[in-house]
Amino acid sequence: MDKLKNYILTYGNAKDTSVLKVDSFLNHQIDVTLMEEIGDDFAQYFQHKKITKVLTIETSGIAPAMMVALKLKVPLVFLKKNVSKIHNQDLYTTKVHSFTKDIDYELSCNALFLSNEDHVLFIDDFLANGEACLGAMRILDQAQATLEGVGIVIEKSFQKGRSLIEEKNIDIYSLARIQKLDGEAIEFL
Amino acid sequence: MDKLKNYILTYGNAKDTSVLKVDSFLNHQIDVTLMEEIGDDFAQYFQHKKITKVLTIETSGIAPAMMVALKLKVPLVFLKKNVSKIHNQDLYTTKVHSFTKDIDYELSCNALFLSNEDHVLFIDDFLANGEACLGAMRILDQAQATLEGVGIVIEKSFQKGRSLIEEKNIDIYSLARIQKLDGEAIEFL
Repeated sequence: MDKLKNYILTYGNAKDTSVLKVDSFLNHQIDVTLMEEIGDDFAQYFQHKKITKVLTIETSGIAPAMMVALKLKVPLVFLKKNVSKIHNQDLYTTKVHSFTKDIDYELSCNALFLSNEDHVLFIDDFLANGEACLGAMRILDQAQATLEGVGIVIEKSFQKGRSLIEEKNIDIYSLARIQKLDGEAIEFL
Repeated sequence: MDKLKNYILTYGNAKDTSVLKVDSFLNHQIDVTLMEEIGDDFAQYFQHKKITKVLTIETSGIAPAMMVALKLKVPLVFLKKNVSKIHNQDLYTTKVHSFTKDIDYELSCNALFLSNEDHVLFIDDFLANGEACLGAMRILDQAQATLEGVGIVIEKSFQKGRSLIEEKNIDIYSLARIQKLDGEAIEFL
């Protein structure tokens, strides 16, 4: 998606060889016209699948996933990190490691919101080592829901996430695939 | 907003006299057509203000705030809870107490995304004791930005949040105002 790549080149900040900051348009301040085009692009790519729900993970996945769900006219479910004390009903849960923050966290989903009748499109802002996406897939397994595809806004293609997902024969579609981060330089695949 | 009130009556769960769970359409699973109407309603109410940015707080504020920002065609900024280690630039920060979760947390915003030229509409999913909204107002004070209004999806009118905001002469508009929660019963103002 050319507009997204231009935003990354113009406003992105490659802190080092692994961290790309896109706080000014994707995950702190959000450019709504870009989000709308992202929603359109994902919805068009996955329109032939019979998607019943869009799934993402709080926090940064919500804005792009919201736009996809709006276009596909299906509910959005976001997985929660940690478990708040007022959510003590039946939950699907799984532990995930974040390499970016070097912490473990728990993903959870109220069992009411995913079932074996659901055909799910998982959307996230970043794909790096694939830990978050694999965690979401474990939640979907617990729900016996069908994962129809994975849509990623920015893929760090030099990390192993894509290959781990492709190994499971999941259709993965990324709007921008980054081959290399090197201080100021950002190279796309 | 009648549709929202119907959703609250049909799908909401009054756990006790203070906690209302709306996980099935607002803050875990999200009904996108309801969100779109919420965005339209807020945008219409605040359209005469010269809003330059919509502001909310992660996580549950993002979906409704996103729809408002989309309608007003301005950027959305969401305040972060806690500070991640890859955000070490100039920050506005303030401490907030959550009565629901009985914890203190820190709200923060990259200083690049709010300035003294901004005219801000603050949107949140709930208003109860007003702690989160007052925290956002302290962040806006640090940025010397102008708060043009507060839009709340569900207001617990039996708690003190509204009066604390009105004391500051801020225009506050809530889509559903709840007068009383009592086990199963939910009464609107």
